[in-house]
Amino acid sequence: MSANTSSEYQRLANHLRETGLLASANGLLGWDQQTYLPSGGNNLRAEQMAYLSGLIHRRQTDPQLGQWLDTLCDSDLAADPHSPSGATLRCLRRDYERNCKLPQQLVETLASLSVTGQQAWIEARQQNNFAHFAPLLEQTIRLKREQAEALGFVGHLYDPLLDEYEPGQQTAQVAQVLADLREALVPLIQQIEASPVCPSTEILRRRYPEAGQARLGRAAAEAIGFDFQRGRLDVAEHPFCGGCGADDTRITTRYDEHYFNSAFFGTLHEAGHGLYEQGLPSEALGLPTGEAVSLGIHESQSRMWENLVGRSRSFWEFWYPRAQTEFPEALQAVDLDTFYFAVNDVRPSLIRVEADEATYNLHILIRFELEQALVGGELQVADLPEAWNAKYEKYLGIRPSSDADGVLQDVHWSAGLFGYFPTYSLGNLYASQMFEAATEALGDLDTMFCQGNFAPLRDWLRREVHRWGRCYSASELIERITGKPLSHEPLMQHLRGKFAVLYGLSTS
Amino acid sequence: MSANTSSEYQRLANHLRETGLLASANGLLGWDQQTYLPSGGNNLRAEQMAYLSGLIHRRQTDPQLGQWLDTLCDSDLAADPHSPSGATLRCLRRDYERNCKLPQQLVETLASLSVTGQQAWIEARQQNNFAHFAPLLEQTIRLKREQAEALGFVGHLYDPLLDEYEPGQQTAQVAQVLADLREALVPLIQQIEASPVCPSTEILRRRYPEAGQARLGRAAAEAIGFDFQRGRLDVAEHPFCGGCGADDTRITTRYDEHYFNSAFFGTLHEAGHGLYEQGLPSEALGLPTGEAVSLGIHESQSRMWENLVGRSRSFWEFWYPRAQTEFPEALQAVDLDTFYFAVNDVRPSLIRVEADEATYNLHILIRFELEQALVGGELQVADLPEAWNAKYEKYLGIRPSSDADGVLQDVHWSAGLFGYFPTYSLGNLYASQMFEAATEALGDLDTMFCQGNFAPLRDWLRREVHRWGRCYSASELIERITGKPLSHEPLMQHLRGKFAVLYGLSTS
Repeated sequence: MSANTSSEYQRLANHLRETGLLASANGLLGWDQQTYLPSGGNNLRAEQMAYLSGLIHRRQTDPQLGQWLDTLCDSDLAADPHSPSGATLRCLRRDYERNCKLPQQLVETLASLSVTGQQAWIEARQQNNFAHFAPLLEQTIRLKREQAEALGFVGHLYDPLLDEYEPGQQTAQVAQVLADLREALVPLIQQIEASPVCPSTEILRRRYPEAGQARLGRAAAEAIGFDFQRGRLDVAEHPFCGGCGADDTRITTRYDEHYFNSAFFGTLHEAGHGLYEQGLPSEALGLPTGEAVSLGIHESQSRMWENLVGRSRSFWEFWYPRAQTEFPEALQAVDLDTFYFAVNDVRPSLIRVEADEATYNLHILIRFELEQALVGGELQVADLPEAWNAKYEKYLGIRPSSDADGVLQDVHWSAGLFGYFPTYSLGNLYASQMFEAATEALGDLDTMFCQGNFAPLRDWLRREVHRWGRCYSASELIERITGKPLSHEPLMQHLRGKFAVLYGLSTS
Repeated sequence: MSANTSSEYQRLANHLRETGLLASANGLLGWDQQTYLPSGGNNLRAEQMAYLSGLIHRRQTDPQLGQWLDTLCDSDLAADPHSPSGATLRCLRRDYERNCKLPQQLVETLASLSVTGQQAWIEARQQNNFAHFAPLLEQTIRLKREQAEALGFVGHLYDPLLDEYEPGQQTAQVAQVLADLREALVPLIQQIEASPVCPSTEILRRRYPEAGQARLGRAAAEAIGFDFQRGRLDVAEHPFCGGCGADDTRITTRYDEHYFNSAFFGTLHEAGHGLYEQGLPSEALGLPTGEAVSLGIHESQSRMWENLVGRSRSFWEFWYPRAQTEFPEALQAVDLDTFYFAVNDVRPSLIRVEADEATYNLHILIRFELEQALVGGELQVADLPEAWNAKYEKYLGIRPSSDADGVLQDVHWSAGLFGYFPTYSLGNLYASQMFEAATEALGDLDTMFCQGNFAPLRDWLRREVHRWGRCYSASELIERITGKPLSHEPLMQHLRGKFAVLYGLSTS
């Protein structure tokens, strides 16, 4: 490698880090918008974030980047596509070509609309008034279509939107994987519904004072390894993981004093995301090697801690006594098995973020189908609430009684996040595959969980997933870790095994 | 005015607004740094803020600005120096010429050092360990000297630093005004010390639960007009007013459960700053017409609400029953006059932010003299704690027993704010002059305060001060409002009148 090439690469890396600083500053503005921003500051915040997004986009499409790529992609630095420099150049070429297709004006308008859209969504949800949000949603969909057209596609207009969150995935492929999953899942859910046993979920609806929930959630996040020296936990209307990156990762949750699951499993979920962010190499801020590989992989980390760990019996073997101490009124007379069964209740429900492990993917399927239809123009915004309700009736057998509990429940569309939902189900699939591999590598994880020992699993994830950033694509990473391609089987095996015991199902 | 000139001016205004967006984003990063930032994020925050400061500085020194100024300063738009366009061009020329003298590298280093310096200061203060902070302070002073040299000066190296906060003021002039003030003040303080009566301050040291303090402080801030729809009140180690400008103004305070004054008067003080920020025209964000005219004028707003209003008997006529309701244990048996005398205790003390109205300016004088000596090189950092203690002994007759209560008490030097302190005393002088004029214009303010009616004074300040931004300089503004130049007499008259009654002094 010539000294010239090396200094050229250094200039490229500096450019990326500076862009990363802007993006992380924008991350703080976004976090603040959802946690502490006074309502009168919303318009200014939209303008600030739109301007910063525009600056970032200008830097991401700087022709100088193209020149650097032209020189460096033919150099030794690009020879190994999985080395830090090779991965950086490979990912950057993809991003650069993608970004150059997006007009500056469109990027700024979308960023600004995301802020005003979220504000309208919050108000619409509070007032249970879809009409208040509809005009902004229509505008958002128009712009997302424009974005998809600008990016170009062969199959579905939805493809380039999905590709933003799950690089390399096609709509048709995802539809196939989710169809396979559904085919295996529906019979299991039917078996469960037909079972004569069912948990007592009333115990989760007793009174759980907020302060106790905050203490327990924070302790659990800390126990699985979320680093509060480099992160925070706050309250927000819609829980999320954001902030400024590895050294300043901010997760949020929301408290319902009459429902245990919401904050506790929400916190574990976001802490799982947070562990991934904190596990990325912070010195690579702004570089592909310091970035998450895909949303599906990101989600695999949150779902692993929320479900595969947090809803396991061994986890509660250790944590249940602490929960009892925190909530004596609600839990003193409840034994571990009763509680464990309750947090694993399988039941068609209206709210995605509170759905159980088994039915969750049907919630995703509904959104995936609806947003394809919205983007494709086969469904009009005015007809969306009814389409939503009809699908819930068809797939889950229940119908929302209000839009606040129906089509207005998720922040995503208001923030312009189309193509995002299917990554949740991909995350569930990846998580089970990884958990299977971790068990093979580390031995009996349950014994460790019973002792409150989560470090082996966390460190394994650090080694196998977090530290690699985007050095491998999502599929490469899964192949590397598990030796197998993406499959719905490990998830189904996990669900079948767990619920056979809980619901006394025949395992034939 | 030609269409050409007009569109040129519009481009200039757009440029300034975009710079204002960056500055307001940086304002949020700074607010967050002092309220919610986890400690592990400090280095990243320093880098983010340094990078944004650099971007802002590059935009402020963009040669394009010089070209716009060359064209527009000779046009009709500049004809009236107090019109929005005239003031914009006049202030911008001053700022541009000033900014162009500062090397980009120096600006970025100072911004970064400000963050790490403040972190070191917090630690040093917690550990009462000046040595931990000394190397960073030395570095800061070296850079401030560099800054002063780069800006150029005729009189004292300190002049260009002072000019940053109080445009147009000279070190020698300020020294003279403060000397006049001291000459009038010292005999008054001596009279007070010789008085046989003295308030019972023990009542302020009783137990005041934090939640009650937070409620009362927030209610008072709201009552004087701080708009919580466009602002927040949070907790920070060193109280300040910051955030993103008129539409998102953030004030902070700190609570001491065994001292009433700290949070209550601190909140009133910051709310006074906040009223000024919220009263600036928000559509002029980034333009001189949307900016505060000087720190002295800014401080006049905080001191007016903290002291001239908040420490008046008429204010407590209305507020004392609320305080008694909030703190029955501490205040039930205390009558209004006893409480009023207690919050107006005059007594030499160690902590500036908790000093009384009369001795406060001596605290400023000490800092003003010390920082001139530090910048001038006559005083070394290693000798600073002893110099500090010696001056307290000389001017106030008391000696700090620890550096935490001495030289480490203020954040300013750690943040690179040299030349800032004297503006506090200028603020006291301006405030009294304005209050005199407001009384003349509005009639008996005390009657209004007794009824909890603060709107007339607030609206008068909006009209006479806030809405003008930088359309007039500080001296012009004072002349316009009061018909007189800067003077220490109104402040002295206020202090003499108030303390003569409280301490039973002869008024001869």
